[in-house]
Amino acid sequence: MSEQIIAIGLEGIVVAETDLSLVDGINGHLVYRNHWARDLAIHHTFEEVAHLLWYGALPNKEQLRDLEEKLIAERELPAHVKTAIDCIPHDIDMMSVLRSGVSLLGLTGNDWPPTIEQVISLTAKMPSIVAYRAARLAGREPLVPHKELRHTANYLYMLTGKEPSHAHVRALDAYLILTQEHGMNASTFAARVVSSTRSDLISAITAAIGALKGPLHGGAPSEVTEMVEAIGTKENAEPWLRRALENGERLMGFGHRVYKTTDPRAAALRVVASELSKDDPWFDLATHIEQVALRLLEEYKPGRKLNTNVEFFAAAVMRAVGLPDSLFTPTFAISRVVGWSAHVLEQAANNRIIRPQSNYTGVMPE
Amino acid sequence: MSEQIIAIGLEGIVVAETDLSLVDGINGHLVYRNHWARDLAIHHTFEEVAHLLWYGALPNKEQLRDLEEKLIAERELPAHVKTAIDCIPHDIDMMSVLRSGVSLLGLTGNDWPPTIEQVISLTAKMPSIVAYRAARLAGREPLVPHKELRHTANYLYMLTGKEPSHAHVRALDAYLILTQEHGMNASTFAARVVSSTRSDLISAITAAIGALKGPLHGGAPSEVTEMVEAIGTKENAEPWLRRALENGERLMGFGHRVYKTTDPRAAALRVVASELSKDDPWFDLATHIEQVALRLLEEYKPGRKLNTNVEFFAAAVMRAVGLPDSLFTPTFAISRVVGWSAHVLEQAANNRIIRPQSNYTGVMPE
Repeated sequence: MSEQIIAIGLEGIVVAETDLSLVDGINGHLVYRNHWARDLAIHHTFEEVAHLLWYGALPNKEQLRDLEEKLIAERELPAHVKTAIDCIPHDIDMMSVLRSGVSLLGLTGNDWPPTIEQVISLTAKMPSIVAYRAARLAGREPLVPHKELRHTANYLYMLTGKEPSHAHVRALDAYLILTQEHGMNASTFAARVVSSTRSDLISAITAAIGALKGPLHGGAPSEVTEMVEAIGTKENAEPWLRRALENGERLMGFGHRVYKTTDPRAAALRVVASELSKDDPWFDLATHIEQVALRLLEEYKPGRKLNTNVEFFAAAVMRAVGLPDSLFTPTFAISRVVGWSAHVLEQAANNRIIRPQSNYTGVMPE
Repeated sequence: MSEQIIAIGLEGIVVAETDLSLVDGINGHLVYRNHWARDLAIHHTFEEVAHLLWYGALPNKEQLRDLEEKLIAERELPAHVKTAIDCIPHDIDMMSVLRSGVSLLGLTGNDWPPTIEQVISLTAKMPSIVAYRAARLAGREPLVPHKELRHTANYLYMLTGKEPSHAHVRALDAYLILTQEHGMNASTFAARVVSSTRSDLISAITAAIGALKGPLHGGAPSEVTEMVEAIGTKENAEPWLRRALENGERLMGFGHRVYKTTDPRAAALRVVASELSKDDPWFDLATHIEQVALRLLEEYKPGRKLNTNVEFFAAAVMRAVGLPDSLFTPTFAISRVVGWSAHVLEQAANNRIIRPQSNYTGVMPE
């Protein structure tokens, strides 16, 4: 009871030492295991970066082929998960369906410590859950996963029924890589708390999905697309944004709790998205809005350093590859599971139960 | 980055001020909102104590009837949850089924802030999930919840198909009351972390169930029954326990991280269980073992203050009312949901996202 430290919200409290990532908001740095996340997103694939986070190093050719093949082999959903999704009422949102689908995967036999095989199997199946549900909602027969396509391409294939273009796969790959891992956020922390009781991987990731579902964390990336569409034309950008700022509204897609300079993920996605969307009028409008918004933010909130954040370009990439707003947060979960599971593996390797205290503010009985 | 405090495991870190409970291990005190938990367990019912934790005061007669009726009205499971449970493979454990069943309940429409109506509905349904699954595993047709029976009695009814005796209901009620709430443990904390992102009640409780599933938290209460059965006779108690202690084994049901004196929950359950099991040879053997164990623990580990903990008498109560070992932790969850949800309501009333930090121990790229 002595030497208590009160830290509601746990700001500034370090709960783990990790080799997985560094998030340095002052300098705009994001590092995954000794590599710049930006470089990884531009030069590597989803599987290569997952290998880096799970195994500790980028793969050689053989290791990469092995991981790609394992992910392909593990995509198919068990029958009971499909039956369950079939009967979830259509007005239950996709994040709740993903949380339930993951929970239903369950684990039999040894469930502690978590293994990389379990992690690969789960990572492979999460896109299948989302795509299966999306097909049912659209009244389409869900597709069987494509045996020749890698993780990201197969996700797009299962959602659209078409083999995606190379440019679309590259853009979505970059987004997924840049959101695989981001230090000790609320969902990653939830996964570690659950795992610290020696509970299983499925329980930890189910918890993390539930945390990401909250708008304070998973965000509301559709708000960016809504803003771009509400503005509608380049001419309307300045009057619309000026009115919003004068009404004290927050501009969606700008400012980040951690990054006080350019969000390194936004910078990398800007590169990828601009190649992709050269002739896309929506992207053209969005980048115009971005420039106007940055100028007006400097005018209305000087010194606040409100830069474009990852959600702004995430919306552009999602939009360009044809993902509807309802899939933005579920797709974030599909990438972040790589980081969550890497943290669960790291936690398990040197486990200590995470159990803080509370202060009783009631009255003592007589 | 400055003023970091490193607290792996968060021991001694206060993350919340709470009116809900005080756990004072030094003095052996457990308080729920200004009342001794021990008195509540002996003199009140599950619903009365739930009312205390959710609404802040014990109910008057009308409030109590109202809560009892609401819980009765909300017990039936939605069809899709039953269908999903029907097809979960039989080798998936009950805690995983409960986690999935709760997640599948989902929520439509407004999911923030959480409401007491949502809490009542969820609390009413958790016993139905466990009883439905238990019936299926046993090859029985699941029973429709009993409209005339209160929460605890109905749970026993749905598990056994018989209206339980008053003594059994009282004993299980006492156990459920004593485990409804216990400060900032790992599952309660997981629920608060998830809820702090403004995620919904279902996500928070799903996470908590996952944390309770871990043996470092939900424990392995069946280990007590296994020990009692391994010992088998009163004569064998001393040689068996002596051998265990000399081999450096931990005795199941003794010692608690927090309580350095008698666990107040064990003390209350001892009272209830002894009335119940006067003529039960299993209980007779268990209490004999308890006495021998306490004497030998003092001999082998003097000054360590290893007292009987709640699990020891929990096992006795569960056993007496006819619950198999496989339902011990799920039954714990059915009571603890009251505390979890009270914490979620408290968190939401004054929310701040719970987001600690991590220290990067890797290398910086060039």
